[in-house]
Amino acid sequence: MANSFGQLFRITTWGESHGGGVGVVVDGCPPKLKLTEADIQPDLDRRRPGQSKIVTPRKESDTVKILSGTFEGKTLGTPISMWVKNEDQRSEAYNEMASKFRPSHADYTYHAKFGIRAWPGGGRTSARETIGRVAAGAIAKKILKEQFGVEVLAYVSQVQKLTAEIDHERVTMKQIESNIVRCPDAKMAEKMIRLIEKMRSAGDSVGGIVEGVARGVPVGWGEPVFDRLEADLAKAMLSLPASKGFDIGSGFGGIALTGLQHNDAFRMKGGKVRTVTNRSGGIQGGISNGEPIYFRVAFKPVATVMHEQDTVDVTNKNTTLKGRGRHDPCVLPRAVPMVEAMTALVLVDHALRHKAQCG
Amino acid sequence: MANSFGQLFRITTWGESHGGGVGVVVDGCPPKLKLTEADIQPDLDRRRPGQSKIVTPRKESDTVKILSGTFEGKTLGTPISMWVKNEDQRSEAYNEMASKFRPSHADYTYHAKFGIRAWPGGGRTSARETIGRVAAGAIAKKILKEQFGVEVLAYVSQVQKLTAEIDHERVTMKQIESNIVRCPDAKMAEKMIRLIEKMRSAGDSVGGIVEGVARGVPVGWGEPVFDRLEADLAKAMLSLPASKGFDIGSGFGGIALTGLQHNDAFRMKGGKVRTVTNRSGGIQGGISNGEPIYFRVAFKPVATVMHEQDTVDVTNKNTTLKGRGRHDPCVLPRAVPMVEAMTALVLVDHALRHKAQCG
Amino acid sequence: MANSFGQLFRITTWGESHGGGVGVVVDGCPPKLKLTEADIQPDLDRRRPGQSKIVTPRKESDTVKILSGTFEGKTLGTPISMWVKNEDQRSEAYNEMASKFRPSHADYTYHAKFGIRAWPGGGRTSARETIGRVAAGAIAKKILKEQFGVEVLAYVSQVQKLTAEIDHERVTMKQIESNIVRCPDAKMAEKMIRLIEKMRSAGDSVGGIVEGVARGVPVGWGEPVFDRLEADLAKAMLSLPASKGFDIGSGFGGIALTGLQHNDAFRMKGGKVRTVTNRSGGIQGGISNGEPIYFRVAFKPVATVMHEQDTVDVTNKNTTLKGRGRHDPCVLPRAVPMVEAMTALVLVDHALRHKAQCG
Amino acid sequence: MANSFGQLFRITTWGESHGGGVGVVVDGCPPKLKLTEADIQPDLDRRRPGQSKIVTPRKESDTVKILSGTFEGKTLGTPISMWVKNEDQRSEAYNEMASKFRPSHADYTYHAKFGIRAWPGGGRTSARETIGRVAAGAIAKKILKEQFGVEVLAYVSQVQKLTAEIDHERVTMKQIESNIVRCPDAKMAEKMIRLIEKMRSAGDSVGGIVEGVARGVPVGWGEPVFDRLEADLAKAMLSLPASKGFDIGSGFGGIALTGLQHNDAFRMKGGKVRTVTNRSGGIQGGISNGEPIYFRVAFKPVATVMHEQDTVDVTNKNTTLKGRGRHDPCVLPRAVPMVEAMTALVLVDHALRHKAQCG
Repeated sequence: MANSFGQLFRITTWGESHGGGVGVVVDGCPPKLKLTEADIQPDLDRRRPGQSKIVTPRKESDTVKILSGTFEGKTLGTPISMWVKNEDQRSEAYNEMASKFRPSHADYTYHAKFGIRAWPGGGRTSARETIGRVAAGAIAKKILKEQFGVEVLAYVSQVQKLTAEIDHERVTMKQIESNIVRCPDAKMAEKMIRLIEKMRSAGDSVGGIVEGVARGVPVGWGEPVFDRLEADLAKAMLSLPASKGFDIGSGFGGIALTGLQHNDAFRMKGGKVRTVTNRSGGIQGGISNGEPIYFRVAFKPVATVMHEQDTVDVTNKNTTLKGRGRHDPCVLPRAVPMVEAMTALVLVDHALRHKAQCG
Repeated sequence: MANSFGQLFRITTWGESHGGGVGVVVDGCPPKLKLTEADIQPDLDRRRPGQSKIVTPRKESDTVKILSGTFEGKTLGTPISMWVKNEDQRSEAYNEMASKFRPSHADYTYHAKFGIRAWPGGGRTSARETIGRVAAGAIAKKILKEQFGVEVLAYVSQVQKLTAEIDHERVTMKQIESNIVRCPDAKMAEKMIRLIEKMRSAGDSVGGIVEGVARGVPVGWGEPVFDRLEADLAKAMLSLPASKGFDIGSGFGGIALTGLQHNDAFRMKGGKVRTVTNRSGGIQGGISNGEPIYFRVAFKPVATVMHEQDTVDVTNKNTTLKGRGRHDPCVLPRAVPMVEAMTALVLVDHALRHKAQCG
Repeated sequence: MANSFGQLFRITTWGESHGGGVGVVVDGCPPKLKLTEADIQPDLDRRRPGQSKIVTPRKESDTVKILSGTFEGKTLGTPISMWVKNEDQRSEAYNEMASKFRPSHADYTYHAKFGIRAWPGGGRTSARETIGRVAAGAIAKKILKEQFGVEVLAYVSQVQKLTAEIDHERVTMKQIESNIVRCPDAKMAEKMIRLIEKMRSAGDSVGGIVEGVARGVPVGWGEPVFDRLEADLAKAMLSLPASKGFDIGSGFGGIALTGLQHNDAFRMKGGKVRTVTNRSGGIQGGISNGEPIYFRVAFKPVATVMHEQDTVDVTNKNTTLKGRGRHDPCVLPRAVPMVEAMTALVLVDHALRHKAQCG
Repeated sequence: MANSFGQLFRITTWGESHGGGVGVVVDGCPPKLKLTEADIQPDLDRRRPGQSKIVTPRKESDTVKILSGTFEGKTLGTPISMWVKNEDQRSEAYNEMASKFRPSHADYTYHAKFGIRAWPGGGRTSARETIGRVAAGAIAKKILKEQFGVEVLAYVSQVQKLTAEIDHERVTMKQIESNIVRCPDAKMAEKMIRLIEKMRSAGDSVGGIVEGVARGVPVGWGEPVFDRLEADLAKAMLSLPASKGFDIGSGFGGIALTGLQHNDAFRMKGGKVRTVTNRSGGIQGGISNGEPIYFRVAFKPVATVMHEQDTVDVTNKNTTLKGRGRHDPCVLPRAVPMVEAMTALVLVDHALRHKAQCG
């Protein structure tokens, strides 16, 4: 009972890996926004399996269809229902999953919680669930861009120990999309791609870090004390499959500094109150301060590996399981549009909430 | 409009640093729980300013009063209203704050968002707001302990660069409370205390890491896809003042491993499905798996320092501001009961949610 | 932004009269419930236009498809997405509606609120929206019956001035379904049918009353103070198109009595606390008391009539409009499954909520 | 777990009849609204027991104190906590209530639901709970008046069989407050007062109807499909103690008309789209249409009567109980400010929701 996200711009996702498809209902979208499938599909294509040699090869076109909420190419203010059919449903590849729990997957916990689980393809725990998020996020990004001048970006900054240094204030979507790993540092991207290919060959996987950025957010978004902007971003990111950590601004690294070193001094600049440094990450006291928002999300290495591993089965017996079928050596390139989507969903929700009370 | 937290065990906090006090209403508490102020006060005393030489010296007894929701020492199932009076209200110490924004505080963002702010003591942005959380958390901890056998603990594991190694599976409350910095590693605790005292003398401050642990959580708590247990924990922690990051299980550190290295193998042990390692941090697919839950929260160094800093005033002029009055060189010892409280609030809420759908 | 209903058993409906269809996502359904389309379709057939000579003739099979949330015929505990295609889309019949507001319809208010509206078939204001409710309600009724022994029924008790006297404690589904007006008083049903046919011939319409009953509800459901069981039922009923009033138990009629006359005395009966009379309508203080719950819902005469009426157009000019195309002389027979559905949705939600706090 | 009401202007009430008091936290109030206790107290005085000879004589000053959320007489945008102490706590008058269930009260259902109840004064089921609503409603009314030009009124239109005819478009607060029964028809008011006095002498009680009116509501408030304005009003009214029914506009009476007779024709008037009649009650399709909103709420006769009645006790034995102590012969005069408060709370919440999506 937690398949909805957002208070005023509220999405509800549904769907399992196998079955009638996956989708999302978006409630609360402002009316009269120009919207067709062409606004949604590009982000789904960035999330799609099989998009490059370094991601999972599942064959899915992931073609979105808007079933409601628009009329003559514009939003109505009523719920927008979007649907993507499931196509590549090879249950047989997963047969062993019916009786054995994949290590570090959600098979066991779903089985224990619900007493039943859709084992083909991981059912609801499949990353296909994020299709609904990315589709809804595309709408959120469009609203942010057109109505608030806010740009949301994400990119891969680290794969295992390969770390890129990216200037989050200047990085562009073009740079991010210039290579298949979505790391705007071209040289490091090449190394990352080689590492991921090596992992694919070894039947193993790697994790890393995706950084998210929002530029142009006006002062005032965020609802203390519990729905601080960074709190909602943290929740959004930790709700993504395989994510294990989140920090914002100086984050874990800020600990090394003293308060005097860490504080962001205020100065007037161009008639605006600005901070000289931005260790706060664009948010102070839970409310945006007009500086760029930037944060990091840690993703663990994908749990499915092509090796025999110890596990137990549904009858509580020790056994082993070897990953078969599709193998995703690195979730990061596809996590980029997911991070963007969740960021945009948080921001547009807060934009509307701010308007309601203080607008 | 975000002063409530939780779905079924729902708290609403209120109150500014100065004024009639601070408090909380707890809605959804199960009936017939034994409860008096004596169950609440100890955690408030752990959160209280002035409790030791290394925390802020504000003089407050922080005595809690239960105004409703109990009868003859037991909960009624109706809202529990708790109230703590404000006592030490030295507005004059903050006079300069009326017109100048403290760097890296929330003065500017509140001013910009609401067009008004209660500047004495920081108003709603004061850490006094967490009194309501800690009071409610004490109830949550009691329910977890008595009805579910779950123990929630937190402790300081790092102050600036001083890092303790704590075994989260075995650490005890007694060890944690054995020193004023709340680090169960006694030797490291001494160093930490010296560092904090040095900072106090220098009018500066340090941050660090609080680790949270929940032991005894049964399999099955957590509501994917958006209200994953780790997602709600992340939000809870990032909603605390001065927090900048969260990770769970292997967290940011897990990135160094490959999938094969990182996966937690399942094995039967004592008739139960257990994992051999616990890099998952007790949660898989957003649902508890029966292993200990452990996570880290990064806190930045407190922004109030006793030095002159650049800032701007409410008339948008550059100026400087020097911290005066009470100085908190390190928020960590007092953050420990806050982290415990928020952890307990998340867990009891999920316990009730799990019971509703799957009980 | 209000297309969801329920707290723990939460439905989200979507869809316009014309377009990709209408549907619903059900979140929070308990796992392991046997469920296929065959459990849903019968109630949709009872709601369907064209089912008899006295309802609107729109040609729709209203065939439901479950897209997610079940596996091998059982619920997973994940969101259940259900979809019904739109088939009979004769926009041309509505062309005049593009520029003129139908009196006592929602055309004008939608236009004014959103600045845009899907005029074909009334868009989101079409009664087709209730398909999602009825589909979700069928699941709710199944849970109530199988897991709680609760039976939910509704029937037509009044059409304009034709009033039937029905014993809500004994009326059966068979009696209700024995005639096309769904009034279990066979003689009165004949008169009602004749009246509705007369109205159809005259191009006019009539309203009336649907009574709802829930039998077997255990003591204890309902969440004071705001989510009293009768409050949520009232909201549920007033959210149905064309409804104008609700009362429960003695309702508006109870005003004629004094307190002494009106009170329901308690007596032990069969080892249970029972009330001798049931003017409370099965609810006291917002909580079910174990007696049958019964209430009335007033529906106005359908606004679409085949006569020329004064109205204004989208350019704010006075004009006239004559209803064309499909004409529904009486909404009551089709409102019966809607009332049942909403009743069941309220009850199953409260069943889960009660279990969470007091179970 | 249902002591909150509203989505964006959200109130949480707490408190029992006896104990530390009753109160409310208001979250989401716009900042910079002038607000002191003087804005709240007058409505509490209208709700207060002992205000006249025809209401319950409990001696309470019901003095409200604002504990948070304002600064220098203006709202901060943070939670407003308001508290009223309990004063007249004569538990002994209720001693028999500890072991016997009062007929048609909530004693039995609370006891059965929670397994515990605060029997003195009815605990949470006491009408004192509505103090929080009325206090919050006073703020809502102030916002509506000052920021939207909306006036909210309520009055008694019927006591048992004594029915007044009131023109809801023209009635004034002064007329309503000109007599103690709050019926603006002075002649009928006298009869009503005599009837209530007769009931008081007889130790009996009477119910009746309170009508609510909102004038000046702009076009566009209301959130279909579930949070239609009339649906939220219905819920609000049925959440009041002793209410049994709600209808809006033509309501139950509209059933007598055909669609052609019932429809509200649109005409331009003063440059605005207006309806010639207002059987819709100011709401069409769940959204306000600019006409006055008016509705009726049925209140049953108060259950406490000074006569011996059959009941059962907590040991499940048949017994009798005679009302003692304070006797409220008619709840209607005090229900008037409650109806106003709930109306205002619904409206201001919808005003903010409308602004968020369509503003």
